[in-house]
Amino acid sequence: MSLSRREIAAEATGPTIVAGEILVEIMATDRGMGFLEPLTLVGPYPSGAPAIFIDQVARLGGGAGLIGCVGRDDFGTINLERLKRDGVDVSAVDVSDRYPTGSAFVRYRRDGIRDFVYNIAESAAGQIHLTTAARLLADRAGHLHVMGSTLSVAGLKEIVAYALKAVRARGGSTSFDPNMRKELIDGADGEQFAALVDDADLLLPSGDELLAAAGVDDQHQAVTALFARGVGEIVLKRGADGSSWFGADGTRIDCAGFHVEEVDPTGAGDCFGATYLTCRRQGMEPGKALFYANAAGARNVTRRGPMEGTAGFDVLDDFIAGTARAT
Amino acid sequence: MSLSRREIAAEATGPTIVAGEILVEIMATDRGMGFLEPLTLVGPYPSGAPAIFIDQVARLGGGAGLIGCVGRDDFGTINLERLKRDGVDVSAVDVSDRYPTGSAFVRYRRDGIRDFVYNIAESAAGQIHLTTAARLLADRAGHLHVMGSTLSVAGLKEIVAYALKAVRARGGSTSFDPNMRKELIDGADGEQFAALVDDADLLLPSGDELLAAAGVDDQHQAVTALFARGVGEIVLKRGADGSSWFGADGTRIDCAGFHVEEVDPTGAGDCFGATYLTCRRQGMEPGKALFYANAAGARNVTRRGPMEGTAGFDVLDDFIAGTARAT
Repeated sequence: MSLSRREIAAEATGPTIVAGEILVEIMATDRGMGFLEPLTLVGPYPSGAPAIFIDQVARLGGGAGLIGCVGRDDFGTINLERLKRDGVDVSAVDVSDRYPTGSAFVRYRRDGIRDFVYNIAESAAGQIHLTTAARLLADRAGHLHVMGSTLSVAGLKEIVAYALKAVRARGGSTSFDPNMRKELIDGADGEQFAALVDDADLLLPSGDELLAAAGVDDQHQAVTALFARGVGEIVLKRGADGSSWFGADGTRIDCAGFHVEEVDPTGAGDCFGATYLTCRRQGMEPGKALFYANAAGARNVTRRGPMEGTAGFDVLDDFIAGTARAT
Repeated sequence: MSLSRREIAAEATGPTIVAGEILVEIMATDRGMGFLEPLTLVGPYPSGAPAIFIDQVARLGGGAGLIGCVGRDDFGTINLERLKRDGVDVSAVDVSDRYPTGSAFVRYRRDGIRDFVYNIAESAAGQIHLTTAARLLADRAGHLHVMGSTLSVAGLKEIVAYALKAVRARGGSTSFDPNMRKELIDGADGEQFAALVDDADLLLPSGDELLAAAGVDDQHQAVTALFARGVGEIVLKRGADGSSWFGADGTRIDCAGFHVEEVDPTGAGDCFGATYLTCRRQGMEPGKALFYANAAGARNVTRRGPMEGTAGFDVLDDFIAGTARAT
């Protein structure tokens, strides 16, 4: 456990990198139960939380690199082409001849709950490992973002361990989105989880994840405990209700959400986190970064397709000018 | 090589069985190149050539059993429910907790060529092996149908070897659809291919497969050579142009195709073969069996979805009454 205060490294230190699943998403256009009869679907959409995150970093002009694996098929190509177009360094995205690109079928029930048919573990996305290209990317990175949700893939742990060291060695920083399954936090992987929390210059929990990350039942206690462990700053995602920033000196900034018509919520949290981080790496103050992050998350839910709503500052400024905020 | 004349075993000997891939098919509704942008799709449709074949056997009232493997997901369920509804014994269909149900995305180009994104080898369909349930099914089967296209899956060879012996031991028969990739016929698997041809009571080639099966360049020579090797009867599939039956005594029956509007050709050959075989197992003469087989193949292409056009005799009789034939 380190008690030195962490700081997010400036853009000049090197690109932001992330590792994890690249998927296509195929969604049902009408609501109902699962995929038990032929339906009208739409897809493939580029997807995968780490891919959405890094695409948004690149859209904002931030240096951006992704460590992942796709299959040698159209579903891999659609992702690679999109990421390249938006400015992401895909030199560390492996292409598998054997495994197909990962996929997620999603259908909304009438009550808003989603049914999924996933192919991740036995797809190319499950074959990610620490390749030479991944090492080379990590060796010149300025910031590592880690998503708890991806750590169940075997190869991810080795990549994160290597990249953490590499980034730290050159004065870079880390952020951690602790969206990890409860079983993993409690289980054998709890130690890595705790180390990632301790090491985070920026922690990006949503809702109860803040309490789970700190291991306490109260928000104020959680924030205090996390700063005592050396966390640099904490940003709490509250979805449509906006977000809050906590500083180690006890200050707090609340930022109201935007009023939007939700079309597709997938990817909103990733766009939010990527925008907050990238604004900070570009030297923006926490309050302003939070405001842009709220805008990026809100705008993303107005577009069908998890990566279709990623946006640069010009688009976000237009969105902000035209959209009411909650009070 | 056996030179005894083979005969198709009557229905009373036991059910027809087949082994191989069970898939869902998801198809693009508009024509164009591949899956490189989000499209309107429709699916999941139950699919997989062996599954279509055995579903059609059951629809005609034939005893029918399938050896296969699906994932524990909606795509497995949609297949199992359909097969059970139509009367297929699915006791030997394994359900994998680890692998997802196989899938095939298909899109037609403007020139009629199809683009695919497959997940078969690394799906549940690729994990088929000789389970206890598969042995039990084979031990009471009266006919084994083998599809060359499925033999590249490792576990299929063992299943076919076991089922061949079991079926023969109780006086059953075999049919073989030699739709095998050229590399496999020429390669190390050539010996199994030749043995399956030698052993076939019924051979169901289409087009050049007849010549490839015989290893000669002329249709007449091919038929003669195959009968010399012990093949029982040969049915040549000619798609929209109909079909031809060849008997070991040198007789030949040609059957004209039906005029239909093609909606989706996938599965037509499987419906054709299943219908011919089942009619014969039910005691029908070759000419009449060929006629029903043509009708089953033609009707299937009028329905979107590879297994949506399987049909019982009542439906086929209506179709025949209402549809013109080529002359």
